[in-house]
Amino acid sequence: MEKRRIYMDYSATTPVKKEVVETMMPYLTDYFGNASSFHSFGREAKEALDKSRSQVASLINANPNEIYFTAGGTESDNWAIEGVAFAHKNKGNHIITSKIEHHGVLHPCEYLEKHHGFEVTYLDVDSEGRVDLEQLKKSIKDTTILITIMFANNEIGTIQPIKEIAEIAKEHKIIFHTDAVQAAGNINIDVKDLGVDLMSMSSHKIYGPKGIGALYIKRGTKLHTFVHGGAQERKRRAGTENIPAIVGYGKAAEMAKANMDNHIETLTKLRTKLIDGILERIPHTRVNGSLTHRLPGNVNFGFEFIEGEGILLLLDMLGIAASSGSACTSGSLDPSHVLMAIGLPHELAHGSLRLSIGDFTTEEDIDYIIDNLPRVIERLRSMSPLYETYVREQGQLNK
Amino acid sequence: MEKRRIYMDYSATTPVKKEVVETMMPYLTDYFGNASSFHSFGREAKEALDKSRSQVASLINANPNEIYFTAGGTESDNWAIEGVAFAHKNKGNHIITSKIEHHGVLHPCEYLEKHHGFEVTYLDVDSEGRVDLEQLKKSIKDTTILITIMFANNEIGTIQPIKEIAEIAKEHKIIFHTDAVQAAGNINIDVKDLGVDLMSMSSHKIYGPKGIGALYIKRGTKLHTFVHGGAQERKRRAGTENIPAIVGYGKAAEMAKANMDNHIETLTKLRTKLIDGILERIPHTRVNGSLTHRLPGNVNFGFEFIEGEGILLLLDMLGIAASSGSACTSGSLDPSHVLMAIGLPHELAHGSLRLSIGDFTTEEDIDYIIDNLPRVIERLRSMSPLYETYVREQGQLNK
Ligand SMILES: Cc1ncc(COP(=O)(O)O)c(C=O)c1O
Ligand SMILES: Cc1ncc(COP(=O)(O)O)c(C=O)c1O
Repeated sequence: MEKRRIYMDYSATTPVKKEVVETMMPYLTDYFGNASSFHSFGREAKEALDKSRSQVASLINANPNEIYFTAGGTESDNWAIEGVAFAHKNKGNHIITSKIEHHGVLHPCEYLEKHHGFEVTYLDVDSEGRVDLEQLKKSIKDTTILITIMFANNEIGTIQPIKEIAEIAKEHKIIFHTDAVQAAGNINIDVKDLGVDLMSMSSHKIYGPKGIGALYIKRGTKLHTFVHGGAQERKRRAGTENIPAIVGYGKAAEMAKANMDNHIETLTKLRTKLIDGILERIPHTRVNGSLTHRLPGNVNFGFEFIEGEGILLLLDMLGIAASSGSACTSGSLDPSHVLMAIGLPHELAHGSLRLSIGDFTTEEDIDYIIDNLPRVIERLRSMSPLYETYVREQGQLNK
Repeated sequence: MEKRRIYMDYSATTPVKKEVVETMMPYLTDYFGNASSFHSFGREAKEALDKSRSQVASLINANPNEIYFTAGGTESDNWAIEGVAFAHKNKGNHIITSKIEHHGVLHPCEYLEKHHGFEVTYLDVDSEGRVDLEQLKKSIKDTTILITIMFANNEIGTIQPIKEIAEIAKEHKIIFHTDAVQAAGNINIDVKDLGVDLMSMSSHKIYGPKGIGALYIKRGTKLHTFVHGGAQERKRRAGTENIPAIVGYGKAAEMAKANMDNHIETLTKLRTKLIDGILERIPHTRVNGSLTHRLPGNVNFGFEFIEGEGILLLLDMLGIAASSGSACTSGSLDPSHVLMAIGLPHELAHGSLRLSIGDFTTEEDIDYIIDNLPRVIERLRSMSPLYETYVREQGQLNK
């Protein structure tokens, strides 16, 4: 049998599209100038920078001067959270977030709590992973200076009621940040319509290069600079501009925008096919996350009676690249904090599998998975003491 | 006449070497995996990451596990300074640096002063740009927790007595950070021999890609994490690993090491030729910075009676890309803080020109500059009221 390799981990990172690589190449070689330099090499770089800024702005209907390039989604999250916290600490020290945020949000929050005297409320989510707007309202205090709730979850794909949260924040004059690393470029986003103040984005989730992202800062939003130094990014984010990556991100954003309707439709179709196929063939299986408020490319299954690492191992041997949670914490044995927060029991959280679909996924890939995953699960269950117990009990019941 | 383009701004940024681009390419396209992922795509990325870490470590004689990849020199500087400051604030709040640091060091220091209760001493430098070790010793207090002095200056090329500073720091049990962004890869550095605790480096100054750098952290050095999130970089620097850039940086570091002796010799020869040629042909000219403790590729002239921006403009029209100071502050009308600190009067600081030489600079490039720069300076002086006054006075003296 020919060795297949099927990439089902687009939420972890995406390949860079050919057109994006081609757009970047000249800036690695001929047009290598420092965008802050005064000469012709610098001007070439500066022009490319301006163009990319417009492309990224256009993806989310922002003004170009509200887009600040960073080294990625994590830096954007850190900047937004620490930047607002330190700039407003005279007003208050309270931050509201949710239990299912990416670690790029949770860890700066914990850092501020542990070392800088801030207090953080971690909102619960319901069984689909959505925050409760009433609980949000109740947790607001006089000292609340920031609400940070992610746009779409990286593990279970759940999309939050961002517009409603933005309205609540606005009513209370609290700054609202959303981590849209999984969302920006994968679903339609209009920051003006939504009314968010700060939004984190990343290029490598939308077929652009790694190591580049952006923070959308609504005009007039006060926050400290995070990376201090040279006068780049209108003096708000220092460091020699990473022009090749910025150019690539611009191109990826442009392509994502142009392709948005088709992207959503195609991925949603593949997602439905995968979910239906697997639920039909594998008993004792659930879909984690919301079926309606969901990223087009996200599938997350919970299989009873097995362990996630085992699934990954067997799938990897079949050439299928998948994930049990977030790539950033793989290697850790704790069950996902997201799956725990939506109320999954320990065993089911351990037996979960994320298959994320992207622009290069084909119907045949989905068929291959539908054909092969059942055997994998069966084999693992046949080794599982939990499953044995279950089968024995069922047998006794049916006697 | 054919349009020449001569790049003399290697200190601002370098082109990426062909071999480096070739090494990066597969990681943009085929091997695009997330290094933290569990599957084969992830493993390919992880292996590349480990290899690059060794290459960068080897450039400065560090252990691979003392190298932490960042998004560039500025982030490394910010991390080192804020990371040490916040981790040791119970012990003290005093930081010592110098007046000629890059803004990537000065601005985080100022930020800590302005917003977080730290106190910073900015050491003077002598007319060559070197710090005075006696003044350093005298400025140490019980509350001093960090000394941060750059390895080599980006404007005038002056190299500091790093080993001596490290010894002083060690004697007083103070952490020593050095910004080696201009030095690491351009001159021989052995962190073990020097005894530094933290060292910032950047890839785009040594023919690697932009947007990637490293912080050397000597084993056992305590500092807070700067970018909080996923468990990357042994939990000390979060964010999806920028594998293509890291691979490129590794290759660039490897090449810099292999080519070091030749690099230093060739650049020093070109530098000497340029300095001699210009001093011989243009009167009222000085070389800023030290002639002995100097980066091989750095030339910085001070021309009396003219303004830097005018030189840059005319050189740009001749196809010569140069700089009046640091790229990060171009666009500002203030004279360089470095040139002011070495005692240059305002006018001379304004009339300074940095020509930085790199691996693609040829003898012909230097000849072209020696042939053309004199006319540029003459023309500018002929327009200068200062020069007119000077010539008139000289005429009267000679009457
Ligand atoms: C929701 C979310 N936030 C933040 C990040 C971090 O982004 P980056 O890897 O660009 O630092 C990720 C992905 O890693 C993510 O999925
Ligand atoms: C001495 C020095 N430090 C820090 C930096 C900043 O490095 P980067 O541009 O990689 O952020 C530079 C160059 O820009 C520099 O010359």
